[in-house]
Amino acid sequence: MMKLQVIKVGGAVVEDAAAVGAFLDGFAALEGPKVLVHGGGRSATALAAQLDVPTVMVGGRRVTDAAMLRIVTMVYAGEVNKTLVAALQGRGVNALGLCGADLGWMRSTRRPAGEVDYGFVGDVCRVDTTVLVDLIARGVVPVLAPLTHDGQGQLLNTNADSIASEAAKAFARDFDVTLTFCFEHPGVLRDPADAGSVIPQITRDDYRKYLDQGVISGGMIPKLDNAYAAIDAGVSRVVITRWDALQPGQGTLIQ
Amino acid sequence: MMKLQVIKVGGAVVEDAAAVGAFLDGFAALEGPKVLVHGGGRSATALAAQLDVPTVMVGGRRVTDAAMLRIVTMVYAGEVNKTLVAALQGRGVNALGLCGADLGWMRSTRRPAGEVDYGFVGDVCRVDTTVLVDLIARGVVPVLAPLTHDGQGQLLNTNADSIASEAAKAFARDFDVTLTFCFEHPGVLRDPADAGSVIPQITRDDYRKYLDQGVISGGMIPKLDNAYAAIDAGVSRVVITRWDALQPGQGTLIQ
Repeated sequence: MMKLQVIKVGGAVVEDAAAVGAFLDGFAALEGPKVLVHGGGRSATALAAQLDVPTVMVGGRRVTDAAMLRIVTMVYAGEVNKTLVAALQGRGVNALGLCGADLGWMRSTRRPAGEVDYGFVGDVCRVDTTVLVDLIARGVVPVLAPLTHDGQGQLLNTNADSIASEAAKAFARDFDVTLTFCFEHPGVLRDPADAGSVIPQITRDDYRKYLDQGVISGGMIPKLDNAYAAIDAGVSRVVITRWDALQPGQGTLIQ
Repeated sequence: MMKLQVIKVGGAVVEDAAAVGAFLDGFAALEGPKVLVHGGGRSATALAAQLDVPTVMVGGRRVTDAAMLRIVTMVYAGEVNKTLVAALQGRGVNALGLCGADLGWMRSTRRPAGEVDYGFVGDVCRVDTTVLVDLIARGVVPVLAPLTHDGQGQLLNTNADSIASEAAKAFARDFDVTLTFCFEHPGVLRDPADAGSVIPQITRDDYRKYLDQGVISGGMIPKLDNAYAAIDAGVSRVVITRWDALQPGQGTLIQ
């Protein structure tokens, strides 16, 4: 099977003019088929403030009323996505920006209002990569904005990490997929205070051991759990690395 | 040759919630391969006002500094484009939203500063429809936002009528293209005050005659000149019609 790299990069990188250039240089240098998934939350929050639309986050997720949906659509699918696409084209990468509604490729269901009504937020329910697989085969690099649709005409805000995981799982039917999450840290650290303490490789046995020993704790646990959920669903391996360290062998390899 | 319809619709329609639904119903009902080109200038001007960015128009064209480029990128490629794409998907149309940087399909040159410096405004210099032709053959409907790129990483604001004409001309290599411009009027009128006076068909001989007689004058002259320029460049026919009258036989057929 042909290899495919799905790289998720957060808003903190794509919204920082200096960082984004270095990140895109590294991304452009990656050989072979690849997909970029980006965030953009900080810009959305900043634009919302300028437009007097309050930003409400619950458990790290953005409550998305109609005014906020318009803002995230403008920022994620407009400003961030097209700026990245143009910058990649300038680096010789044949980028194609997409939200989930484009080609109808990622459909979601509006999250039912429970204790919290998240508004226009969708949980992915159907991914159809048929056309994208063919485009990738001819050298196109999809650049995915964190928006989906319900198939009935409604756009829905969807977490970029979830988009990356769901895309990686769907592409795993046709490719040997490496899913890479880019953070500010160079990988999973033995000592959170020591950037030099990257654990180069983690297996399931290691993970259990590190959990028992308390080496992996806090916010890193859901990241590792998500990584193994993706692997259980067909993704070959997950990498957690810094945004400027995308080459094979950098960061932490989870398998 | 297979037929292809390239439909240009202006901001006044796509930004009016009632009109856009009726327009999209008509667009979705059109049989065969089709492409949609949209504007969005009114929303851009409204957002600019909210963000205290002054809108400067010279000869009907928007002067586009960096702040305005960010706004038109958000509005055209984000809000308007993705709202249309999701709405079309909800109508069973496999829409794919694109700006000129996506797939690198429409490249432009930044307009040199003369008496007026238009800023980040581009004039189309190269159109590559190779991938789009294949996507159209498999039922995909491109939805084109009026933004291009210079191939060096820079997005450029580009007039939507120009995008429609340049796209139609490029597609004419592979398709028998009808280029339709949607306005508020039901076509070219003999009497501008009488909506019932639509001229159903205009040939070049008719056009010369109408010019001599003063039947066609003012703002209609550049529209007709542009139509014949497109026909000279390979487009089979141009239609000028109202946005809710897209079916064959409606409006004015120019050939």
